Amino acid sequence: MTLENVLAQIDADLSPATERLMELLRIQSISTDPAYKPECDKAADWLVADLLTIGIRAEKRPTPGHPMVVGHVGEDLSDVPHVLFYGHYDVQPVDPLDLWDNPPFEPKLEETANGTVIRGRGASDDKGQLMTFVEACRAWKEVHGTLPCRITFFFEGEEESGSPSLIPFMQENAAELKADLALICDTSMVSRGVPSISSQLRGMLKDEFTLVGPRIDLHSGHYGGPGLNPLREISRIVASFYDEETGKIAVDGFYEGVHEVPVDQLRQWEGCGFEEKEYLDNAGYTQAHGEKDYSILEQQWARPTLEVNGIWGGYNGAGSKTVIPSEAHCKITCRLVGDMDPDALRHKIRKHVEARLKPDTKVVWDNDLEGSGASVMNITRPEFESARGALSDEWQREAVFCGMGGSIPIAGFFKSVLGMDAMLVGYANDDDAIHSPNEKYDLKSFHKGIRSWARILDALTK
Amino acid sequence: MTLENVLAQIDADLSPATERLMELLRIQSISTDPAYKPECDKAADWLVADLLTIGIRAEKRPTPGHPMVVGHVGEDLSDVPHVLFYGHYDVQPVDPLDLWDNPPFEPKLEETANGTVIRGRGASDDKGQLMTFVEACRAWKEVHGTLPCRITFFFEGEEESGSPSLIPFMQENAAELKADLALICDTSMVSRGVPSISSQLRGMLKDEFTLVGPRIDLHSGHYGGPGLNPLREISRIVASFYDEETGKIAVDGFYEGVHEVPVDQLRQWEGCGFEEKEYLDNAGYTQAHGEKDYSILEQQWARPTLEVNGIWGGYNGAGSKTVIPSEAHCKITCRLVGDMDPDALRHKIRKHVEARLKPDTKVVWDNDLEGSGASVMNITRPEFESARGALSDEWQREAVFCGMGGSIPIAGFFKSVLGMDAMLVGYANDDDAIHSPNEKYDLKSFHKGIRSWARILDALTK
Repeated sequence: MTLENVLAQIDADLSPATERLMELLRIQSISTDPAYKPECDKAADWLVADLLTIGIRAEKRPTPGHPMVVGHVGEDLSDVPHVLFYGHYDVQPVDPLDLWDNPPFEPKLEETANGTVIRGRGASDDKGQLMTFVEACRAWKEVHGTLPCRITFFFEGEEESGSPSLIPFMQENAAELKADLALICDTSMVSRGVPSISSQLRGMLKDEFTLVGPRIDLHSGHYGGPGLNPLREISRIVASFYDEETGKIAVDGFYEGVHEVPVDQLRQWEGCGFEEKEYLDNAGYTQAHGEKDYSILEQQWARPTLEVNGIWGGYNGAGSKTVIPSEAHCKITCRLVGDMDPDALRHKIRKHVEARLKPDTKVVWDNDLEGSGASVMNITRPEFESARGALSDEWQREAVFCGMGGSIPIAGFFKSVLGMDAMLVGYANDDDAIHSPNEKYDLKSFHKGIRSWARILDALTK
Repeated sequence: MTLENVLAQIDADLSPATERLMELLRIQSISTDPAYKPECDKAADWLVADLLTIGIRAEKRPTPGHPMVVGHVGEDLSDVPHVLFYGHYDVQPVDPLDLWDNPPFEPKLEETANGTVIRGRGASDDKGQLMTFVEACRAWKEVHGTLPCRITFFFEGEEESGSPSLIPFMQENAAELKADLALICDTSMVSRGVPSISSQLRGMLKDEFTLVGPRIDLHSGHYGGPGLNPLREISRIVASFYDEETGKIAVDGFYEGVHEVPVDQLRQWEGCGFEEKEYLDNAGYTQAHGEKDYSILEQQWARPTLEVNGIWGGYNGAGSKTVIPSEAHCKITCRLVGDMDPDALRHKIRKHVEARLKPDTKVVWDNDLEGSGASVMNITRPEFESARGALSDEWQREAVFCGMGGSIPIAGFFKSVLGMDAMLVGYANDDDAIHSPNEKYDLKSFHKGIRSWARILDALTK
């Protein structure tokens, strides 16, 4: 039986497939730091070359930022579905570097309590997940000399830095990119071993500000007392974002557009196999710290956040320096849900900060940051049920529709720009430490992920 | 007349004297950063060599940290006062380097609205001030072949990093260092052109802590909501140090040992020529931001502070990173007045922080930081009146006894370890930007400072 042969080929080819992923992981494609631009280019070249070996017409396409990789196969096939597969080849910065047990770009296999893992930056987010689909196609091609449906490959190199080139590129190449359905592999499983299809994602808003106080750094002896200290001020302002009583965000109008989760959906989530204890343990938490009166799943999937991702100012070096600094800095990201509007929210947050400035201080905003709303998938489409069946077969466990705390703006863009629904299937685990030191991807996720895509492609053609 | 000849020699030698100071300023003697240890050593060698040219028996003396420089002259003279002169050859770190208009260790003369200045790190704090006394001695020796009194020179290289070796060294060499009176040149004038003798100094307490939250850096999508963010927590804790209503420090028992300034002393301070507007303008402030109901002078000289000198955590690089960091860091210094006890205060502050920790967080304290109480000078000694006369003659303006916001622990140590009173005379100005980028020392301060010391030495022998 055809699918069985493909799955057998995948099992036989696992070791070379892993080595191919390692090659890609060795490329330091950090998109947010301009210093790594050549590495991003290199990753795109690697993907083009690899797709070509599978007979996919792939090419690197320039953008004002990092290049896209676009590939096509199966235009000659008739009466088959046409899917677009999306993934991103760029990765997060690696600092703090000293917390890595192994150099982030020297990937290796490691034995752990949960089995073998592939350790390295990007192993899970998103190079490892991206390659699960590519390897499924490779095996299919190997066995049948062709692929079961028409496929457009679309790989981005700016996902970790806000995808500035994405929408313009999609608009300019709409006709070429349009397919029946977009497949995205950049999400995690709701719990270890529970195959998951994401039915909703949170949106994202980024902002950054500098609080400016005295004209110059001051001596804390000469000016300590009469002097205003921007570090004290930025602490007061950041603290004012939160209502410690309720755990809510205290920014006026912050929750406009947020909706309560329907009871039936809550019931379904409660049954989806999410392991609260495992989730907390992975982070070293003994309890949840979000909004009171909301479950952990709601806090993570259905409630908005205002997170401070970085604060710095004054002297951070060895020893001490008796300084009142002239500036303090703060990086912010919000996760959006429901109908929250990123631009309106940015305005509310800035208003909140500006309303709390003391005399002799001013705030300077970074004007180069983007936002995107939350998105909900169209799970009534038949492909979702087909995929759910295929995933259940592979993992021998009922696949579930779950929410997701992360933001994958592309899902919304496929709908808004190309009028195309998206289906998100991923095999990452919460302990993958994506965006953190010692990122890893379970070898089991990689292996069964490849097999899952083979089953899904097969199911989509039925 | 002998003094006149010395003053004339000082005027004639100003240009070479300035060049000698430049030489010393080119040495990058940053004591707080271990990377600059060789430069500290170099500065000590330079001072030894220079003192030897004046016929002072000087030598570099090792300590566990940076070396001391000790020199003696005039033991053969009888019926003359014996003074010890103290200064420090180490300097503050130079960051943020990009705010310097000129490399910090490439000093140069610059014309400004207030006349010629010597620009460079350490020009005012304390190399320039230290050299005013050395140059006064050089001129006196040049004119008379001898000095007017017995002098012990004592230069330290750890003043900007808490003077860890100072007390042990003073204890081990007490007999050698003991004199009738210690002269210290590390203070500023209460206002431009107003010669000042400091009658009281604030003490200093340093502390530093790390707030530890999750086990690792977390993804703000996966954990945003349920997750606890150390940056949010450290902001809340720092904000809780302050009572925004009164401007007071909100740490329980913080003001124990603080005394109100006697009315007669307040009157005297009000008459000492302190220019509030100039003081605020130098920092770019339009108003004072300290405790309500206290004058700027009281806030600066007679009230304690809790200052945050540095906060850092999360991602501080280019672009953004959607991270919930596992740690946040904070550096603190307090200025102490009256009878505040550094050790007791450290305990109160740590208790304040620990009482505000949420579950799943812990605080780690730096245990390597010191404190010193405030000190009051014994201005009833006749030498203070002699010096006041000498200074008034040089500056053609009544010299004043003023308070000081800074901390010079050595003044207290001379009393506690050697039973020796200290007199602090300095020529710095509030706009010298000490500890800041573009530090400078007025050439006028340097020139008249040298002349002032010549007059003081002369007056002490009368």
